[in-house]
Amino acid sequence: MKFGGTSVADLARIANAADKVRQEVENGYEVVVIVSAMSGKTNELVGWVRDSAPENGLYDRAEYDAVVSSGENITSGLMALRLQEMGVPARSWQGWQVPLKCTGKHESARIDAIPTENLDASFASGCKVAVVAGFQGVMDDGRIATLGRGGSDTTAVAFAAALEAERCDIYTDVDGIYTTDPRIVSDARKLHRISYEEMLELASLGAKVLQTRSVELARSYRVRLRVLSSFEDDISADVGTLVCSEEEIMENIRVVKGVAYSRDEAKMTLVSVADRPGVAAAIFGPLADAGVNVDMIVQNISEDGRTDMTFSCPTDHVPLAEAAMQAAADSGELNFRDLITDKNVAKISIVGNGMRSQAGVAKKMFKILADEGVNIRVITTSEIKISVLVDRKYMELAVRALHDEFELAVE
Amino acid sequence: MKFGGTSVADLARIANAADKVRQEVENGYEVVVIVSAMSGKTNELVGWVRDSAPENGLYDRAEYDAVVSSGENITSGLMALRLQEMGVPARSWQGWQVPLKCTGKHESARIDAIPTENLDASFASGCKVAVVAGFQGVMDDGRIATLGRGGSDTTAVAFAAALEAERCDIYTDVDGIYTTDPRIVSDARKLHRISYEEMLELASLGAKVLQTRSVELARSYRVRLRVLSSFEDDISADVGTLVCSEEEIMENIRVVKGVAYSRDEAKMTLVSVADRPGVAAAIFGPLADAGVNVDMIVQNISEDGRTDMTFSCPTDHVPLAEAAMQAAADSGELNFRDLITDKNVAKISIVGNGMRSQAGVAKKMFKILADEGVNIRVITTSEIKISVLVDRKYMELAVRALHDEFELAVE
Repeated sequence: MKFGGTSVADLARIANAADKVRQEVENGYEVVVIVSAMSGKTNELVGWVRDSAPENGLYDRAEYDAVVSSGENITSGLMALRLQEMGVPARSWQGWQVPLKCTGKHESARIDAIPTENLDASFASGCKVAVVAGFQGVMDDGRIATLGRGGSDTTAVAFAAALEAERCDIYTDVDGIYTTDPRIVSDARKLHRISYEEMLELASLGAKVLQTRSVELARSYRVRLRVLSSFEDDISADVGTLVCSEEEIMENIRVVKGVAYSRDEAKMTLVSVADRPGVAAAIFGPLADAGVNVDMIVQNISEDGRTDMTFSCPTDHVPLAEAAMQAAADSGELNFRDLITDKNVAKISIVGNGMRSQAGVAKKMFKILADEGVNIRVITTSEIKISVLVDRKYMELAVRALHDEFELAVE
Repeated sequence: MKFGGTSVADLARIANAADKVRQEVENGYEVVVIVSAMSGKTNELVGWVRDSAPENGLYDRAEYDAVVSSGENITSGLMALRLQEMGVPARSWQGWQVPLKCTGKHESARIDAIPTENLDASFASGCKVAVVAGFQGVMDDGRIATLGRGGSDTTAVAFAAALEAERCDIYTDVDGIYTTDPRIVSDARKLHRISYEEMLELASLGAKVLQTRSVELARSYRVRLRVLSSFEDDISADVGTLVCSEEEIMENIRVVKGVAYSRDEAKMTLVSVADRPGVAAAIFGPLADAGVNVDMIVQNISEDGRTDMTFSCPTDHVPLAEAAMQAAADSGELNFRDLITDKNVAKISIVGNGMRSQAGVAKKMFKILADEGVNIRVITTSEIKISVLVDRKYMELAVRALHDEFELAVE
């Protein structure tokens, strides 16, 4: 059971979360609970670190980790105390006590291994709950490390894998994964089950419920991952959304499982670049070095040895991208006639394992959008998704039309 | 170098403390710094523990330790960062990383051993400062423990002993040990040096600068202990007060070194108790069980097989003492005619190693008090101190008279 920051924001919410743990113990389970820091705690600690460190930001990441990991340690102790108060045998574990072994760099460490001897011994001695401080572990040299982006769901999945848990329940502030955003489509439907692959496509496309890294890990180790709300009472096995392997999805395989969108996209086109080997590297190398998150890439047909290259990125990366391209032009490494930027586009994607075996899905998508008068700017496809860039003003309209026509509201 | 809570109350004070450490590194030292939690941090954490635990207070001490130790961990990381920002090679150490090994009970653990291999290796690799989180260590089972009352000065002394440090500097909010309280005697003089034994007598008598337990440890391991202010710029070796062995005190051995007082004392007299073997146990056993901190004890001469027994205790222990004596009387274990309580007394003590070899000090003390018209209620003596109870209204007068007549203001 993993509880994120909003689920353990204060003592009352820690008590609420503890009560859910108690229920699972009464259901006969031994439970590993992964907790985040209380609301605001991490920001306070990070602020102190920043204020203590040099202005150039080149502070010692190992010290950052030593300070910031305290937030999760505090929650784990408080949760253990609350469980004990409820009569549930529990104890806290800091990352180094388990130990959760890390490698890589401080502040963005990776999980290397989780030997389970200590936890096993604790459960064997009658302890029912191990409350583990999330987002942290210990390096080979004995120093504390925090995990990188997405580390807190990932901690939970890693423990579930190491302990061969029946399930990994991610408690959050939504009650599951929906066919699309209910704020846009009122009859969006909660999915009972979704495959790892579908979830990865939805997550990276803007359905920000589960951290991508954790879903990838769950897929690798076949950890059954459930998303459910920490603010609802019912936690029985059929609530929330289960992310699992395709084989386990008993419900009728649908061609399209969900519609995702990403609002703040920009489309940039380099006009008339030389169509020769190495030009892609000359463009996307500098963009990557500048930290621009390039998503879709489309190359036009070549004419007279020159072509247009179009790519998309988040709108707030546009200044970085423009500077990088200008620098590449100035240095003579890249030659183009013009750089056209359109900051008023949005990305819409349909996702579904069924697309693998069903032809004609793309054609149907394009027809639905055409019928609504929505012009498609860029298209990319993968085995299980199709993404398009459209003018932002059509975004909601397009999402609704796709959700309706693919009948996603129907069970 | 040890910095207590007020010396690391916020980021500005941590920076101020770090600057003092930097100076010592420039003086050529390798330094172990022991830090407390930032002001208010421990109270916040203790509050959360209380609020998470059962109302009967029977919470899991191991979880208390896991949570509360975070306060010192945070300071140690922030101090290390600040030192690095100043260009001083430094790193933080949590208790378990050193490791500082503990035994005994959680929340009041004792220091068992401090293997120095890890610290030695760190210094050998060029690190100049080890910033250690105070007041904590690790038990044999790998769980975090906090030390009992007085643990934070004691951590510093234990490290100084383990590393055979040249000195252990305790930075606090006063600039040294005085011949008496400067708020009462304006020409009270700061002592350059004081022996462990004298310091122990002064500390336990109300000069609450150093924790008794730490002075005892320093005496056992002959750790030279310096008290100085973290709010003054000069930290050269001759400022503050050095607590050291008697042999090291080169200045003219004075008969009386200081005058201590304790304001809120109460005198209680059991009138007409049987003067027979076991009566003292029948009185002081129940008092100890009730948690009454009995200090001075005087037994009157016996008359017709009965005697009066007088003792002193803090005024706020009087209700406990009265209840305990009444219960002992009710159970038939103790028989007395009356219990007379005087809550308007104060204790005054003169302390000095020189008393060992000098006769007549007590006589001089009694004469000084008599000349001022101060009546002595109770007297106790040890090798190096004489304590008296007097009416509280004479307390300041008596302290001033003793300080004057023993010429303590004179270097």
